[in-house]
Amino acid sequence: MSEEFIQSRQNPRVKLLIRLKDRAGRRKTGLFAVEGLRELSRCVSSVGVEEIYFCPEFFKGPEHSAFVAEVRARASIPLCRLSEGAFEKVSNREGCDGLIGIAKQWECALSDIDVSGIANPTLLVADSIEKPGNLGALLRSADSLGAAAVVLTNPVSDIFNPAAVRASQGAIFSVRVAVASPEELSRWLKARGIKAYGAHLGASDFLWNLDMSVPCAIVAGSEKDGLGPEWDEILDEKAKIPMTGLSDSMNVNAAASLFLYEALRQKSIL
Amino acid sequence: MSEEFIQSRQNPRVKLLIRLKDRAGRRKTGLFAVEGLRELSRCVSSVGVEEIYFCPEFFKGPEHSAFVAEVRARASIPLCRLSEGAFEKVSNREGCDGLIGIAKQWECALSDIDVSGIANPTLLVADSIEKPGNLGALLRSADSLGAAAVVLTNPVSDIFNPAAVRASQGAIFSVRVAVASPEELSRWLKARGIKAYGAHLGASDFLWNLDMSVPCAIVAGSEKDGLGPEWDEILDEKAKIPMTGLSDSMNVNAAASLFLYEALRQKSIL
Repeated sequence: MSEEFIQSRQNPRVKLLIRLKDRAGRRKTGLFAVEGLRELSRCVSSVGVEEIYFCPEFFKGPEHSAFVAEVRARASIPLCRLSEGAFEKVSNREGCDGLIGIAKQWECALSDIDVSGIANPTLLVADSIEKPGNLGALLRSADSLGAAAVVLTNPVSDIFNPAAVRASQGAIFSVRVAVASPEELSRWLKARGIKAYGAHLGASDFLWNLDMSVPCAIVAGSEKDGLGPEWDEILDEKAKIPMTGLSDSMNVNAAASLFLYEALRQKSIL
Repeated sequence: MSEEFIQSRQNPRVKLLIRLKDRAGRRKTGLFAVEGLRELSRCVSSVGVEEIYFCPEFFKGPEHSAFVAEVRARASIPLCRLSEGAFEKVSNREGCDGLIGIAKQWECALSDIDVSGIANPTLLVADSIEKPGNLGALLRSADSLGAAAVVLTNPVSDIFNPAAVRASQGAIFSVRVAVASPEELSRWLKARGIKAYGAHLGASDFLWNLDMSVPCAIVAGSEKDGLGPEWDEILDEKAKIPMTGLSDSMNVNAAASLFLYEALRQKSIL
């Protein structure tokens, strides 16, 4: 396969990569950008990539050249070299590492999530999350702490946002994600006998008193406002994390991680 | 008190604020910068500030003007207005809010930490933390999740770094912090009957099997390398968090938060 070398920032392929920075461009093309060696490696070995762009001037170590050499040897993914100027234009990172790819977005339908093979699953539901970085961090925590899937309700950011992909540290390629309305999710959970638990500062019960030894979904609310009233009918129980300090709020990812840990603990020892 | 209005970026007071961005400047002057309404409010009401600089053009809401008006009315803290250009030069933030102050650093000696009045304390020890943002996040978690104090061993960043102050979201003004060598810490803990527990991926026991119902210190290692061998003799036990996903590491703050939560849980219910 012949490799192109693009030096112009006006090149149509460079322009496509730039379009993927914006949600509108991602929606219209159905594509997204995957930047960085770790993320790109995971993408290649899971969902696959359409094209890979590289700029050796930005490589951070021999593993970057080795990755490109391996892709080249396989000869199944189009490779294209970019000039430094062109790469800077398409990169979403300070201190980029000279690797970026384009991958196809996938459907995130709740009906595609199958937990029937998972004994005693825990799910994470992230409602109205605004910051893509938080969304990515939630995916990473879900991956680390054993969530069977992540469901996004009332999404503000999309998981294909470059900051979400980055903060997930590649977990976007391993955690199953669905987007659904709270009502749709509620029906789906009820049909499977999965309890819905809310993480809520105003709850009266502490997290450790919640029975998480059963199949359950942890619903974490937005950074600013927590869970809206629409959840009152959906949730089986709410619990809070005791806050001892000056702060009246905890990072949404920190809170979700504590709930996921508690579920892991109870499911392991009870 | 007369208020100065500084428009020049060459003004010596502007230059002092700029010096405080660097550790060398902070060390030499014994001062640090506190930026943002929340942080500055907490600083004023706890350790106090030496001077406050403001730039109304960057204020984000009426609470910013109200804060300045209140400080002015009290007439005990020197106030100084900066031009937009000068403020941009001293600010450490994108999207600054037009408020920055100078405060005196304080001693962080282990001998100043007194936990004798705290029933069944939990301490957080942060070893070799490199990123000031992680240091600040650890202070915030310690504040939220009931740590009696934070001890920094082998510190790479200092807590007065602007990124640490910011990530702490003001917890730097409420959590007691000490800097000590691992050996000094070990003697201090032993003298008080406080167990030393390590958070370590290579441990064989899970976190929930660790007896945290007693006075204990959680030692969290550096982002990259975890805890070094020097800790082997110091630690009473090690425990790990089960990692279920692709990732082989967890953010140091996420890990420390899970340990702090487990201590809270055991101390509350056992």
